[in-house]
Amino acid sequence: MPTNTKPRLSARGRAVPASPIRRLVPYADAAKADGVAILHLNIGQPDIPTPRAMIEAYRSYDEKVLAYGHSAGLPIFRRAVADYWKRWNVDLAPEQVITTTGGSEAILFTLYALTDPGDEILVPEPFYTNYLGFATAAAVTVVPVPARVDDGFRLPPTAVFEALITPRTRAILFSNPGNPTGVVYTRAEMERLAELARARDLFLLADEVYREFVYDGAEYTSVLHLPGLEERAVVLDSISKRYSACGARVGNIATRNEDLLEAALRFGQARLCPPTVDQLAGAAAYASPASYLEDVRVEYQQRRDILFAALKAIPGVTTFRPAGAFYTVARLPVADAERFAIWLLTDFRVDGRSVMVAPASGFYATPGRGLDEVRIAYVLKGEDLKEAVAILAAGLAAYPG
Amino acid sequence: MPTNTKPRLSARGRAVPASPIRRLVPYADAAKADGVAILHLNIGQPDIPTPRAMIEAYRSYDEKVLAYGHSAGLPIFRRAVADYWKRWNVDLAPEQVITTTGGSEAILFTLYALTDPGDEILVPEPFYTNYLGFATAAAVTVVPVPARVDDGFRLPPTAVFEALITPRTRAILFSNPGNPTGVVYTRAEMERLAELARARDLFLLADEVYREFVYDGAEYTSVLHLPGLEERAVVLDSISKRYSACGARVGNIATRNEDLLEAALRFGQARLCPPTVDQLAGAAAYASPASYLEDVRVEYQQRRDILFAALKAIPGVTTFRPAGAFYTVARLPVADAERFAIWLLTDFRVDGRSVMVAPASGFYATPGRGLDEVRIAYVLKGEDLKEAVAILAAGLAAYPG
Repeated sequence: MPTNTKPRLSARGRAVPASPIRRLVPYADAAKADGVAILHLNIGQPDIPTPRAMIEAYRSYDEKVLAYGHSAGLPIFRRAVADYWKRWNVDLAPEQVITTTGGSEAILFTLYALTDPGDEILVPEPFYTNYLGFATAAAVTVVPVPARVDDGFRLPPTAVFEALITPRTRAILFSNPGNPTGVVYTRAEMERLAELARARDLFLLADEVYREFVYDGAEYTSVLHLPGLEERAVVLDSISKRYSACGARVGNIATRNEDLLEAALRFGQARLCPPTVDQLAGAAAYASPASYLEDVRVEYQQRRDILFAALKAIPGVTTFRPAGAFYTVARLPVADAERFAIWLLTDFRVDGRSVMVAPASGFYATPGRGLDEVRIAYVLKGEDLKEAVAILAAGLAAYPG
Repeated sequence: MPTNTKPRLSARGRAVPASPIRRLVPYADAAKADGVAILHLNIGQPDIPTPRAMIEAYRSYDEKVLAYGHSAGLPIFRRAVADYWKRWNVDLAPEQVITTTGGSEAILFTLYALTDPGDEILVPEPFYTNYLGFATAAAVTVVPVPARVDDGFRLPPTAVFEALITPRTRAILFSNPGNPTGVVYTRAEMERLAELARARDLFLLADEVYREFVYDGAEYTSVLHLPGLEERAVVLDSISKRYSACGARVGNIATRNEDLLEAALRFGQARLCPPTVDQLAGAAAYASPASYLEDVRVEYQQRRDILFAALKAIPGVTTFRPAGAFYTVARLPVADAERFAIWLLTDFRVDGRSVMVAPASGFYATPGRGLDEVRIAYVLKGEDLKEAVAILAAGLAAYPG
């Protein structure tokens, strides 16, 4: 009999991956401690100001008792989301919105409701790395569907999906606009996904948190725009990026599938409610003038242009013009992008400055893929972005690896 | 091939239970629409004012960008929790606290980290009903360990636990002070649990959200007080009840088990961070003067006395003096407490008022248990509480069922 031996975690507890984005943080901290200024191309924390109306919502909160809200979310927030969809020509009732604690919980509730342990979800690769964490929590297997930097990470051919479908496949999960790729799927690509979902009895789970960030006036197609897909289309959403409010944990599930809404509500009842004041602030954000989001889009598009031009000019770098979100993936002329990224932090300085990028391998589930790629977030102002890419270029020229 | 058939949820999605506490809400809403005043003995939403310093923390929030915090929680909040434990003679470092989005997420992260799908957790019954929802989400089986109203829901004998342990049993989960029972386990009971955990290689997961609400000057024993249990003791905590701040979603996992802390952090990285402003407000709550919690305890103890005296005087009611939390379970002289509770809402009025209680069967996992019991929350002021129990007594006398 054990007396005071160290008890073991579960296989699930051992398997959940650490954030690959945060893995390099100790190297950056050490460099900063040495007085080196680090320009961050690695994280998706926008520098854009949060709408002031949102901050004011916190500042005007004045209840005696900070009470539970409804498990499906405050009515004011659900209505704000439904109203928001009207701008996108999507007719949705507030009852078709379940408020969640961040987009993370939207993904978790949807996985709980649609999958059993051992089920599989198809995910175009590279993908938002935290999908792996949620899938591990829900005991579901992520089956990557390879996309490629050389063709701008367009949607893989239907035959590639078909070959990976098994009796346990339940859904296709994807972010659109894409994190980490910046790809925006065309209407034709979305219809191809819809056809596949209907033909193979799958759900389409669309993480659309970057929906507002689509450039060059391109048309944006949400899964909620697709006719005949009402029961299978699920939007997983969040205010974090849209309103530069990552510290407010408010997201939502938007779908016309009543069974899913009802099941998500039951999972929601177990956790009682999403944060009350964050929801009030979120409703205020949705009520901010349309010019806020337009200005943000213009700003990101300018940064995108700066970044793309600068990256394209570096010898040996393969990249493409990202059409949305605020990331891109670039292939570097190095064998191991993680070692290069660490070397930048530990050994390379230009006038006492260096740059931090995210190795892309953490965004792939297939071993060996993405080893020579990095994700670059353009959440810095234009001048800083130029300088950061210049340091990256100088680093590539000087890298002994 | 299906074309637009309705796709099905998973077994998990169908299985997750609706909140039994909220199931009677439509009856209460209908009565209110008819002009009936309903006194609520059914819910655990305290009427105690939230500490003003906490509200002021929202009101003084003034950042330009509401940014992500650390996945393990803001340092100021983790330090506040560690400092709080010193008052209980528990020496804990801030690094031994992982901040979670409510107590709910503390339970989920712990289940993810310690169990695999199909594993079992032992839970003294009746128990906090939402444990079933979390267990369903994590695909883990709740194995109820029966306790009884007749002996005040004391900890079941060790032999009863032993008989239910299988090779898949991973942990014992319990709330202490108990929701819904109001029981507070003695030092001897806690040591009995500790011995069992060591002998059978189990974790002890103690939901201690009502820790401050222990009456009659009784000693309170946390799992963190138990020597030789460092690797197995986990506190699941929340500020919701302690500071009457249920709408702020801030909880934490406190443990000395480094593997668990590290795994909880990895699950935490997937969801990025707990709500930033709620954490700032939570830190302010912990910094409020000790008199706040003392006053709240005195208030609840007075209500407990009123409730217990009034319930004991009703013919045919079996109950006991609850020692903690703000609930009790009473056996009523009716065959079906849920039908009685509905009848109170639909048919019974005293001067245009009625009362709402929570059928206790929802707090049991064993079919048939608790059918004649109700949970009563004493979150009303003394006078309202007296009136509510008087209506309950009159209802029992008049009930035709």
